[in-house]
Amino acid sequence: MHLGNGPKLSGNLLCKIGSVHVMQTDKKITNQTHTYTTMASEPKVLDKGNLSEFLQSYDTFMLDCDGTLWEVDHITAIPGIDKVIHMLNKLGKRILFVTNNSVHSNLNYKLKFQSFGFDASEDHIFGVAYATAVYLKDIAKMDGLVYLVGSPGMASEFSKAGINYFGFGADPDKASWDPKDLLEMEFRPNVKAVVVGYDEHFHYNKIYKAASYLQDSECMYVASNDVEISFPLGPGRMQPVTGTLVKTVSIAARREPIVVGKPHPLFLDCVMKKHPEIVKERTVFIGDSLKADIGFANNVGIDSAFVLTGTHNLNDMNSGEFPKPTYVMQSLADILDI
Amino acid sequence: MHLGNGPKLSGNLLCKIGSVHVMQTDKKITNQTHTYTTMASEPKVLDKGNLSEFLQSYDTFMLDCDGTLWEVDHITAIPGIDKVIHMLNKLGKRILFVTNNSVHSNLNYKLKFQSFGFDASEDHIFGVAYATAVYLKDIAKMDGLVYLVGSPGMASEFSKAGINYFGFGADPDKASWDPKDLLEMEFRPNVKAVVVGYDEHFHYNKIYKAASYLQDSECMYVASNDVEISFPLGPGRMQPVTGTLVKTVSIAARREPIVVGKPHPLFLDCVMKKHPEIVKERTVFIGDSLKADIGFANNVGIDSAFVLTGTHNLNDMNSGEFPKPTYVMQSLADILDI
Repeated sequence: MHLGNGPKLSGNLLCKIGSVHVMQTDKKITNQTHTYTTMASEPKVLDKGNLSEFLQSYDTFMLDCDGTLWEVDHITAIPGIDKVIHMLNKLGKRILFVTNNSVHSNLNYKLKFQSFGFDASEDHIFGVAYATAVYLKDIAKMDGLVYLVGSPGMASEFSKAGINYFGFGADPDKASWDPKDLLEMEFRPNVKAVVVGYDEHFHYNKIYKAASYLQDSECMYVASNDVEISFPLGPGRMQPVTGTLVKTVSIAARREPIVVGKPHPLFLDCVMKKHPEIVKERTVFIGDSLKADIGFANNVGIDSAFVLTGTHNLNDMNSGEFPKPTYVMQSLADILDI
Repeated sequence: MHLGNGPKLSGNLLCKIGSVHVMQTDKKITNQTHTYTTMASEPKVLDKGNLSEFLQSYDTFMLDCDGTLWEVDHITAIPGIDKVIHMLNKLGKRILFVTNNSVHSNLNYKLKFQSFGFDASEDHIFGVAYATAVYLKDIAKMDGLVYLVGSPGMASEFSKAGINYFGFGADPDKASWDPKDLLEMEFRPNVKAVVVGYDEHFHYNKIYKAASYLQDSECMYVASNDVEISFPLGPGRMQPVTGTLVKTVSIAARREPIVVGKPHPLFLDCVMKKHPEIVKERTVFIGDSLKADIGFANNVGIDSAFVLTGTHNLNDMNSGEFPKPTYVMQSLADILDI
């Protein structure tokens, strides 16, 4: 069954997938907290012959959202996605939604899923805004005030988690180049973390304040995600996203953040804090970004499936530049009927 | 005579200066347009023995401003600076003020100089805001509209030069994360250059617009300066400056700019466009930044003198990390009486 807009995976493509990089050796990836080994074996094309084995191999299906459930325009559903969720639910699988998009709260995602014809309980949704709140509260056990350069979704998750924050929304101080004005701006005591996510109110004053709070080495620096830099919204329209904002604060502050989002392994720690019952060997991650999704799966040592409905394509997968998935399929809907 | 706050250069320091890095070989510096050779010989300490030769060697004195004429707080004069300018004028020297600070127009600098007790004609002042206008108009011969992420000083210089620009000041569009709103923001036709300087109104919308205009490969990308990233304004206060803003736009747009400011050689082209009579062999650059000022002098092949009243100190000079000056002195006022 052929769903989605890309070319159908054919026997030829299968050969191409199978024939490239067979000499590749295992490679160490070093990141902020761990060193992991990438999967060096070649991706298996999901087809009739192995679909049943695929479905039986995993109890937990972690699904990316943008580019996996809907196209990267955030609007157009990948056809059949609602049926996939219903089927996996019927099979008794645990479905977790794991996304680097820091604009929305988990409640926003729940409502968005409903508009696409399926439901999910909020504790199965791991928007990075929520995951960042879990990290601060349950893992870092941060006690104090957060200067938040973030979205309404993050503010909402922080409020729910009982985290004290400020800075969200338009900056209250007037713009000035005068050092005197800059020195007179209000700075609060007891700021124990600066958190940077997507923020449409990102402003010079916020860069100044974030960089200033971060001069205190005791003040944590946490970013929701960093691999997504900017996306083409349309011809001649380039939308900066969280990675751009995080790198800006890092440059001004001369510090590197702890990053919660994929491909960093911290995201799994946040998920497992809420779902300690998850068995990594029985878990698969399905997503459209080789860097963020497949990279994450490899970094945390779980299987993965790469879908061709979003960020990356087969050429990217075969280029040798990105982590390799366990499986590749045209669309998540391929698991319904191939 | 000992002026300024740092330690007086002594015989010991002279030995220290003279003894380090004698084995250093010439090193190639590659930048956007040229490859230059650094000065490998050791810096000479300016003293009674060589002051007369120093003054006789040069017709043109290019002076940095922040950290050279006044301290990096922009307020405290380096004692004796007014007398230095009067003396150089009396000796018939050509004095040019060459600064990377893009906040101010040349007229602002003229007024600031007057408040410090000396005068300069506007055509001897090369604030990078002015130099950027000279670059666009007289060197790149840019014909079209400029999207300006910059300061009032830059806007004023662009107006004087007859350059059509927009974007200066607070961004007119409301902040939104919604792709629909982002797509609906006004984009103007015929934008032939994006210029980034210091901008206290720097905002998410400006990053989006700059990155979007820069998707057109015909649209030039020009930065006033890029080496100055952020400065400590006081304890726990870190002021982001132009380098941070330029790097942000570069990251989002995935392009690198043409940089007018020091240490890039383009600044000399802008100066010489207005002063073609300058003879490089008879010119010395005096400044406090080894990276920007001494680096600039070395990159364009003119002599330099390093003053200890600003950004860098003797340890920096001897560290081997930075370009080496021709001369070193405690303060610019040392040329009055040592």
